[in-house]
Amino acid sequence: MAVHPELPPELPPELPPELPPGPDTGLTPPPAPALFTDRYELTMVAAALADGTAGRDCVFEVFARRLPHGRRYGVLAGTGRLLEALPHFRFGDDELAALREQGLSDERLLDWLADFRFSGDIDGYAEGDLYFPGSPVLTVRAPFAEGVLLETLALSVLNHDSAIASAAARMVAAACERPCIEMGSRRTHEEAAVAAARAAHMVGFASTSNLEAGRRYRVPTSGTSAHAFTLLHDDERSAFQAQIDTLGPGTTLLVDTYDVDQGIRTAVEVAGTGLGAIRLDSGDLPTLATHARELLDSLGATGTRIVVTSDLDEYAISGLMAAPVDRYGVGTSLVTGSGAPTVGMVYKLVERDGVPVAKRYEGKRSVGGRKHAVRRHDGDGIATAEVVSSAPVAAQDGDRDLVVPLVRGGELCEPLSPPDALARAKAHHERVRQALPAEGWALSRGEPVLETVPA
Amino acid sequence: MAVHPELPPELPPELPPELPPGPDTGLTPPPAPALFTDRYELTMVAAALADGTAGRDCVFEVFARRLPHGRRYGVLAGTGRLLEALPHFRFGDDELAALREQGLSDERLLDWLADFRFSGDIDGYAEGDLYFPGSPVLTVRAPFAEGVLLETLALSVLNHDSAIASAAARMVAAACERPCIEMGSRRTHEEAAVAAARAAHMVGFASTSNLEAGRRYRVPTSGTSAHAFTLLHDDERSAFQAQIDTLGPGTTLLVDTYDVDQGIRTAVEVAGTGLGAIRLDSGDLPTLATHARELLDSLGATGTRIVVTSDLDEYAISGLMAAPVDRYGVGTSLVTGSGAPTVGMVYKLVERDGVPVAKRYEGKRSVGGRKHAVRRHDGDGIATAEVVSSAPVAAQDGDRDLVVPLVRGGELCEPLSPPDALARAKAHHERVRQALPAEGWALSRGEPVLETVPA
Repeated sequence: MAVHPELPPELPPELPPELPPGPDTGLTPPPAPALFTDRYELTMVAAALADGTAGRDCVFEVFARRLPHGRRYGVLAGTGRLLEALPHFRFGDDELAALREQGLSDERLLDWLADFRFSGDIDGYAEGDLYFPGSPVLTVRAPFAEGVLLETLALSVLNHDSAIASAAARMVAAACERPCIEMGSRRTHEEAAVAAARAAHMVGFASTSNLEAGRRYRVPTSGTSAHAFTLLHDDERSAFQAQIDTLGPGTTLLVDTYDVDQGIRTAVEVAGTGLGAIRLDSGDLPTLATHARELLDSLGATGTRIVVTSDLDEYAISGLMAAPVDRYGVGTSLVTGSGAPTVGMVYKLVERDGVPVAKRYEGKRSVGGRKHAVRRHDGDGIATAEVVSSAPVAAQDGDRDLVVPLVRGGELCEPLSPPDALARAKAHHERVRQALPAEGWALSRGEPVLETVPA
Repeated sequence: MAVHPELPPELPPELPPELPPGPDTGLTPPPAPALFTDRYELTMVAAALADGTAGRDCVFEVFARRLPHGRRYGVLAGTGRLLEALPHFRFGDDELAALREQGLSDERLLDWLADFRFSGDIDGYAEGDLYFPGSPVLTVRAPFAEGVLLETLALSVLNHDSAIASAAARMVAAACERPCIEMGSRRTHEEAAVAAARAAHMVGFASTSNLEAGRRYRVPTSGTSAHAFTLLHDDERSAFQAQIDTLGPGTTLLVDTYDVDQGIRTAVEVAGTGLGAIRLDSGDLPTLATHARELLDSLGATGTRIVVTSDLDEYAISGLMAAPVDRYGVGTSLVTGSGAPTVGMVYKLVERDGVPVAKRYEGKRSVGGRKHAVRRHDGDGIATAEVVSSAPVAAQDGDRDLVVPLVRGGELCEPLSPPDALARAKAHHERVRQALPAEGWALSRGEPVLETVPA
């Protein structure tokens, strides 16, 4: 029983000391995906390396025990981002030095991490697919130490991106064919904003305000001006004139800084009846949009569109269905998952050396064993059930195998650029949503629209 | 009226085309703070450069119109992260090329961006301070074009970090002197997780599970093992033995994989009565903790601590006050702001060339003019009011000026390493929370504990 004194007892019972300040580089180090990881993944690896269990053949499964409160379906998002990060999930000198500084100085652990390359297999639902309680959206088969290391990052990415995509899909459905614009960057962490723009575009948002999402994932970007631009000028007319001069009459003028009626009149006077659009960002939008439409039409600006952007969510969008609105800009509610900012996916060890395993204590019962999953469809191609089973599923007409290979022997099965991975997920989502039963589109709270059933 | 055709009409009325796929580099580009920005900030700069208003002397103010539903106070967090990013907020060749690709190809704009260095002044509440509705937590004075560019990033950082810090402060209060451990990385975006760990530590969380927060901000990290480690082994005893062998008997053993009673007995048999702690992650925690304490004591492990970690929030923590719990591990609820994942801060133009300005249309009334702010205290040093005024505030005994200089002429007033900035904010928060009136600690919903009053 060799105690490794260099790996000190963990937080409880003694709290770790405050670390001394590091060198003042003035710079935040670049992100290191390998350190987006909970410390306990590494202490488990250390202990498993010591007792010889680190190499046991393990299967970990990512799934959600339930959908957020009353949601009818979930949308899986983030798989592409996780696969982007996987080749960079390495422990270089900087990362190893950081671990040492944090007291993780077990040499066997550090040597193993220095050589770490994920060598296992990953399967999962195609990004953009729907998921239901128990759907095995990601399956990692690898030696224990390799599989356990990926847990935190996999969950961070999938929980966040799926929360946004799931909320965004409801907004797109509520908007019917009217385009939605993602503009919530200011209401969430700056990197989360980029991922949110990606997830929203995947499920049908037409564009984003976020320039980095444009660069990284080639999501179309949009936006014209804020109230500050009007307030910067001596009067509304000169602000509108400046915007038209630079962006052309096809731009969108924000007309509610002072008085909407006067704003619309000034907008059409300055831009002409070819004005692209007006934006309304306050007030009682159904009434205001109707009034604005009448006024625009009376001024001859019958082709000028109306964009609304004031704290919208899927319910507000739905409430505007009868109003003459052409575009919805959605911010806060989108990037915070419309009440469900995370979706509770877990990453569980389900098989070890071929033996199904599961926690048995009350409260969080899990089913052991690697899962198979198919979506059953009726003769019209409408989904009827999510079949999830630890035994292979006997195929029926209309079944679609949900699990596809993503990584084999540590290598991506199909390396795609980040924009291409997004484009593929977007196309896949568009296909699978066609098969959602009609009641799945209801905004009201209810049960998952597909029941998860055994084979 | 020179139209710049190279800056195309923005999204409405025509949706932008899908961009062609970029070169497949296989790599996500490194983060560029300047592109964590809404597109409309740049179109406003373009139009203001064209009509000569870009250089107008402007004051922008960040404030929250209200606190989240029933909260008694907010905690300002993120200022240090924003100041970290400021010197890197530049448009290099990569960023300019990305803008061109997105159709932002106005040469005057691009030339100006290439030379952009923030040259203005920034003042604000010290990070870690409390804030109330209308508190001017950040004030940016700069030429319009420079000030408007910072809007999106400033709001992303402050809205996210303040949401986490505000929720975390309530948890720390509910826990009284018992240490809280941040372990929510898997429930939020991977970069947001690092910022969340930082914000939580600032308001008193003892440690985090997040290794990158340890590296970047030197937040103490902690964690030992998960259920997977027990399931990896042939039985619980061999898992406990492996952990003790590597981490020492001072470690924390997770005892609820199979049966808590048996788990505790095995834990003490393997580790001895010097076992550091046990962790309970399921079940009815008040009952279970009481039972676990009795059992540990009966086995002679009277010094072994009890850590609980099952979906805790400030209410659950408070509900465990009478239970023999030694540490709280908090995840989901912390990183999602415990029901308020963003705090609705806005960035408003309040002054232009010395003239107060404000949007006048109904719904979102703002007060123009640069604000002064002091916190008033009674003779015992307990805060009594938040005085916010566009005129200077006549000083009274016990007043504390809340606004401090952060940036002058584009230069940080006091460059600090990221860990040092956090340490300072942590110390400041500790001081200011001593002055919170007792009713501020109530978990129940109510009005802000300090009223924001004019001078």
